[in-house]
Amino acid sequence: MKPQNLRLFIEQIHQQLPKTKCYTDPADCTAYGYDNSRRQSLPDVVLFPTSEEEIITVIRLCNHFSIPALARGRGTGTTGAAVPIYHGLVISLEHMNRIIEVDAANRVMVVEPGVLNSEVQEAAARFGFFWPPDPSSSATCSIGGNLACNAAGPRAIKYGSCRENTLGLRAITGSGECIKTGTYTTKGVVGYDLTRLIIGSEGTLALITQATLKLIPLPETKRTLQLIYSDIHHAAAAVSRIMSQPIIPCALEFMDKACINIIHHRNGIEFPINSGALLIVEIDGSTSTILNDLEKVSAAAEGEGLLEKRLAKTEAEVKNMWQTRKALSPGLRHIAPKKINEDIVVPVSSIPTLIHALEQLSKKYQIIIVNFGHAGNGNLHVNLLIDPDDANQQQHAEQCLEEIFNLVVNLKGCLSGEHGIGIEKRRFISKELDPNALTLMHQIKRVFDPALIMNPGKYLPDPTL
Amino acid sequence: MKPQNLRLFIEQIHQQLPKTKCYTDPADCTAYGYDNSRRQSLPDVVLFPTSEEEIITVIRLCNHFSIPALARGRGTGTTGAAVPIYHGLVISLEHMNRIIEVDAANRVMVVEPGVLNSEVQEAAARFGFFWPPDPSSSATCSIGGNLACNAAGPRAIKYGSCRENTLGLRAITGSGECIKTGTYTTKGVVGYDLTRLIIGSEGTLALITQATLKLIPLPETKRTLQLIYSDIHHAAAAVSRIMSQPIIPCALEFMDKACINIIHHRNGIEFPINSGALLIVEIDGSTSTILNDLEKVSAAAEGEGLLEKRLAKTEAEVKNMWQTRKALSPGLRHIAPKKINEDIVVPVSSIPTLIHALEQLSKKYQIIIVNFGHAGNGNLHVNLLIDPDDANQQQHAEQCLEEIFNLVVNLKGCLSGEHGIGIEKRRFISKELDPNALTLMHQIKRVFDPALIMNPGKYLPDPTL
Repeated sequence: MKPQNLRLFIEQIHQQLPKTKCYTDPADCTAYGYDNSRRQSLPDVVLFPTSEEEIITVIRLCNHFSIPALARGRGTGTTGAAVPIYHGLVISLEHMNRIIEVDAANRVMVVEPGVLNSEVQEAAARFGFFWPPDPSSSATCSIGGNLACNAAGPRAIKYGSCRENTLGLRAITGSGECIKTGTYTTKGVVGYDLTRLIIGSEGTLALITQATLKLIPLPETKRTLQLIYSDIHHAAAAVSRIMSQPIIPCALEFMDKACINIIHHRNGIEFPINSGALLIVEIDGSTSTILNDLEKVSAAAEGEGLLEKRLAKTEAEVKNMWQTRKALSPGLRHIAPKKINEDIVVPVSSIPTLIHALEQLSKKYQIIIVNFGHAGNGNLHVNLLIDPDDANQQQHAEQCLEEIFNLVVNLKGCLSGEHGIGIEKRRFISKELDPNALTLMHQIKRVFDPALIMNPGKYLPDPTL
Repeated sequence: MKPQNLRLFIEQIHQQLPKTKCYTDPADCTAYGYDNSRRQSLPDVVLFPTSEEEIITVIRLCNHFSIPALARGRGTGTTGAAVPIYHGLVISLEHMNRIIEVDAANRVMVVEPGVLNSEVQEAAARFGFFWPPDPSSSATCSIGGNLACNAAGPRAIKYGSCRENTLGLRAITGSGECIKTGTYTTKGVVGYDLTRLIIGSEGTLALITQATLKLIPLPETKRTLQLIYSDIHHAAAAVSRIMSQPIIPCALEFMDKACINIIHHRNGIEFPINSGALLIVEIDGSTSTILNDLEKVSAAAEGEGLLEKRLAKTEAEVKNMWQTRKALSPGLRHIAPKKINEDIVVPVSSIPTLIHALEQLSKKYQIIIVNFGHAGNGNLHVNLLIDPDDANQQQHAEQCLEEIFNLVVNLKGCLSGEHGIGIEKRRFISKELDPNALTLMHQIKRVFDPALIMNPGKYLPDPTL
């Protein structure tokens, strides 16, 4: 980017978008250059549009002056997707935060991208509904960011991710054209599915300005079970059994022995001696049927190695069980502030194979590997507790990661289940994607964004490498 | 297409694909030139590949000699999507009909495109599963065709269409490249969503050679209710009530007074005097909870205008109720062999508005309009019973259709819920799709199919018009 271009670009913004708040002072811009990957890069300009027209104007200016453009939700992503590595423009969507419509009769909500996930849930709940994606950052992450990353969370096991719960979008492409995609109805086969193409594309194709979300009736009630097994293999076998009977839990979370130890020591929570793995299973449904469903899931959980089965009897107990799960990430960060967290996915039946291989890799590379995650989807968060300032350990970690990713692909798995690609996994995705499909993706990128200004340096690997 | 090109193309097929069955005699080819739209056009060549390699070879030859290529399932589509209007090559996939794997532990089935929908259901049922899409042609339609058209059926209301129930594909693009899309797992965010882009694209982007289908556990039991209302507006209000409570039926079918009369007269089935509309509601679930769910749905069905509520008590009664619904299409064809059937969609809450407007249009154009369909998704099959040999009526029908489509779009609906576009609706889709999105679709088409050989003349409107 030429400095002169940047100057002219800023001049034009001031001329063409008089009322829009715009930061150019580095002291103001700096807060818009990071995300939860702990990477940082300073944007030259931060803009706070309040309308599609303003976004169209500025994207066209970006094209004209070759300025990189990055849409920003709330920076809760973990992969660096929201870090402006080539500087340029950050478009913060925090002021486009209106809930445009809650259409209860049709189970639909229309929102702007800056609305928080938790605000969507609250608005939906007033009509007896919820929207399934529930990342753990729900209170602070925006719908636009959720959609850009195809976010999920524990409920995805039963209700799916953003791609399964969004009917249509409005978006501004990389060439500054406004498009409307998808439907307002739950069925529709007119036109190629651009909605799902844009969801999960991490802002590399288009900037989402409006979304039509599919709402689901809030279940009347829930039941939460905590299951402790003697080892990870017995727990994995239980996951398989639970997932092969008809009652689908609304959460099936897993944590290994190392996780249990960390929680025990940091949070003082007691577990049976020899606890080797823990599952949290939650089922939802109507009050009249929940006990029956619970019985079935509970029966599937029974089996070799089950040490303890606890049903939460009060709201407080439910909260405590989830507290165990939620205390994990901070706990791990405390032990290894620069840990590597990979949210890989394998077929549910391959979890035992994966776990066994991770144990071997842990020994081979002398790295503590700690595993937890959304076991019902086979989506495990594999944490390598390393100190990256130790160059030797850092090198081992990289070799170890390489082996983990190869293993995952061999098991017909995915390199990421919900966190996405961003910068972190960009160089690895050609392991999973076939080369012809990747070529098509690069060409599709050029269709939406011919000047390649949209979130450059992210997601698809550099085609010139 | 130059005759010389065609000759050289056929020569090359014989040279390069020696073992593949190939028809060139018009007497053989003619059966591969029609579909259930009752249109017909003779292909020059029909090929029966048994491997991806053969398809790659032939698609590359089509590119080289500018020969149109059309993938054919079993010709059950209703829109002309499988009719080779520019002649050229039809690739019949009936010999690629292997079920490659049923992976019960991961709820996944991998199939070739020529497997019939009913064969998938039978293979899945042996492991206690089903695959949701259930078009009424299930016994004779192929999975490849289902995916190409994003087929659905009554169950879509609860379980979704092909796009919601397919994890990944293998396909040959219009440039003859083999691609692998999507995942084998239920979660995954690596790469743009090419799976859903190809599903529903009616063979205009790529030819599907393999699909990884998501299986759902067969419910233990079902209950079927038949509800009769005094008029269509009371029935529509009941649909809204049923859809705004948490128990989602696995079918919610609707038929209007004209349908009831046809069935009464043709099939001798008795209905209460003054029956104005009929709903079939089916719920599924576990034996221990079904009665409770039934009670809730049944309560929601209660309301003004309800004349009769019948719960099927035996398998035979269930079959009879569905027979009523299934007798309709043949019945209507008997009365008006060249009827126009449009499978439009409107938001569920707009069904009464739509029905009222259709009554007005019926009077205005003096055309009998008969409505039935999947009411829970707002997906109505609107039948114009015309005699197209009556030029005056044909012209009226066209004006009437135009008004119906405008109305549907104004109600935030879709021009097709499951039948698709093909030739029939091609000229109308720009009513629904916004021009910028349509431009992108044309560009995406060129990415997959640069020589525009894949099913030309279908789906997207002619860009030169």
